[in-house]
Amino acid sequence: MHKALAFDIGGTKIYSTIIDERGKLLEEPIKFATPKDIDGIKEILKGQIKKYEDEIDVVAIATAGAVNNENTAVIGSTGNLVEGYYTIDFQELSKKPVFLENDANAAAWAEYKIGASKGSKVSVMLTLGTGVGGGIIINDKILKGKSGAAGEMHFKMYPDHRRKCSCGSWDCYEAYASGTALKLTAEEMLNDKNVTTYDVIDGIKTGDARMQAVFDKWVNDITIGIMGLANIFDPDCVVLSGSMAQFVNPETIEDAVNADIVTTPTSIRIATAGNFSGMIGVALLALGGLDG
Amino acid sequence: MHKALAFDIGGTKIYSTIIDERGKLLEEPIKFATPKDIDGIKEILKGQIKKYEDEIDVVAIATAGAVNNENTAVIGSTGNLVEGYYTIDFQELSKKPVFLENDANAAAWAEYKIGASKGSKVSVMLTLGTGVGGGIIINDKILKGKSGAAGEMHFKMYPDHRRKCSCGSWDCYEAYASGTALKLTAEEMLNDKNVTTYDVIDGIKTGDARMQAVFDKWVNDITIGIMGLANIFDPDCVVLSGSMAQFVNPETIEDAVNADIVTTPTSIRIATAGNFSGMIGVALLALGGLDG
Repeated sequence: MHKALAFDIGGTKIYSTIIDERGKLLEEPIKFATPKDIDGIKEILKGQIKKYEDEIDVVAIATAGAVNNENTAVIGSTGNLVEGYYTIDFQELSKKPVFLENDANAAAWAEYKIGASKGSKVSVMLTLGTGVGGGIIINDKILKGKSGAAGEMHFKMYPDHRRKCSCGSWDCYEAYASGTALKLTAEEMLNDKNVTTYDVIDGIKTGDARMQAVFDKWVNDITIGIMGLANIFDPDCVVLSGSMAQFVNPETIEDAVNADIVTTPTSIRIATAGNFSGMIGVALLALGGLDG
Repeated sequence: MHKALAFDIGGTKIYSTIIDERGKLLEEPIKFATPKDIDGIKEILKGQIKKYEDEIDVVAIATAGAVNNENTAVIGSTGNLVEGYYTIDFQELSKKPVFLENDANAAAWAEYKIGASKGSKVSVMLTLGTGVGGGIIINDKILKGKSGAAGEMHFKMYPDHRRKCSCGSWDCYEAYASGTALKLTAEEMLNDKNVTTYDVIDGIKTGDARMQAVFDKWVNDITIGIMGLANIFDPDCVVLSGSMAQFVNPETIEDAVNADIVTTPTSIRIATAGNFSGMIGVALLALGGLDG
């Protein structure tokens, strides 16, 4: 059984574990705070690689940021990551092959291989977290685009500059459908700068009508975006992943989407591959997947 | 040299001609008004098929409406076409193979094989006409989705119900980026129900500042949609086709898109495969394409 040393490199945390070619975690994942410079990140990777290099076949890294089509490097910089991150030569860190993929793409691949979109010819995965990530799978391939950066969920919800997006532009889906966006929607609707995402989530549990209205608006914005993606991709399913996905009702969204779209009905599902789906997906990609 | 009897079936007109495997038109296309019932449509097809059946290899039909993944039938009904259109058994009309594709998909394929997106791994084509059509090509394949209906440009420009779309929903891209939409934008900005698309086009030619503002708003709406598509697909190029494409400046749109997107720069181009690109594209698909 082939094995990967897997990493998930995010803006605040780095996880690492060992994963086999069936997608099984062979060690309890360990967690590091993401260092503030690239040397610190390299040291963490090198430490784990030194420890496991002789027993693994490949180093598999799920990372924030777009990954090139050769799966060797991050292209360009992303707001969440340390300066110069894209200059890291990951292959020089190990004598075993090093394989990278964008974290959302990797998580979408895990859902496709062992999770909620298993068997789907065409699927769209959205990670609803601090931001919104996207991973699109078409006919057994991740949609990568000309440079590897496809699947960015930065399409606009308004054409006329209302909310600034983390990408530097205005009114992207991320700015309305993320966890951060739920707070912004609450601030706007309640005219209260101090309201938090947790206030909204707690409020809907205790039957607070104002918080329910905020939450419904946020779910409606999520739904509006899925309608567009469903008309563009005609997918078998849309999988909702990430820390915020647990709060939404996929059936409510599915009914609204299917009542609106011009393509044939799609299925809205909550992700099932778990919290480490990014590492599982990139390990499966790096190891050649379940189908060998 | 193999040859196709090609048709382009639209809501108001049907065209037909003979096209060879290089995409060359061998006859001057002839035009019919689209009959008001499916028997009338079948009669037109049968008349042409009877005339040419012995000298052609395949019947290739570009049509309004989504076409199934087997390229044999139109799925569901579309607003532009006669009732029951999707029930037509096209294959029974000829003893030669009959091959169908959606008109925008077919036109995108023509651009990819002999036109503006030739050589592009990933391209998005938008037809700006009465409505907005879409054809997306990824790694030498048309994006068809689970049922064949992918590429519908019905993603929303606002989440809050402003303009009704031809599809029955609200605020789709088509309702802001089509020729019909240019008239609606003019009506709204000028508070004049009688203003026409031609008034706007004439106005910008004669330096009318009010008409220029309307036109700029319409181009901005087109651009907003392309930004989203560029972030989703990371395409080599976006090709603008259809009767309204001649009025827009692709460089202006390209500069605005590339200043906004998080993916790598894309190229915006005007279509070059001509007015009969739908018939050319479906003939090339039916004949197996230029590459044999």
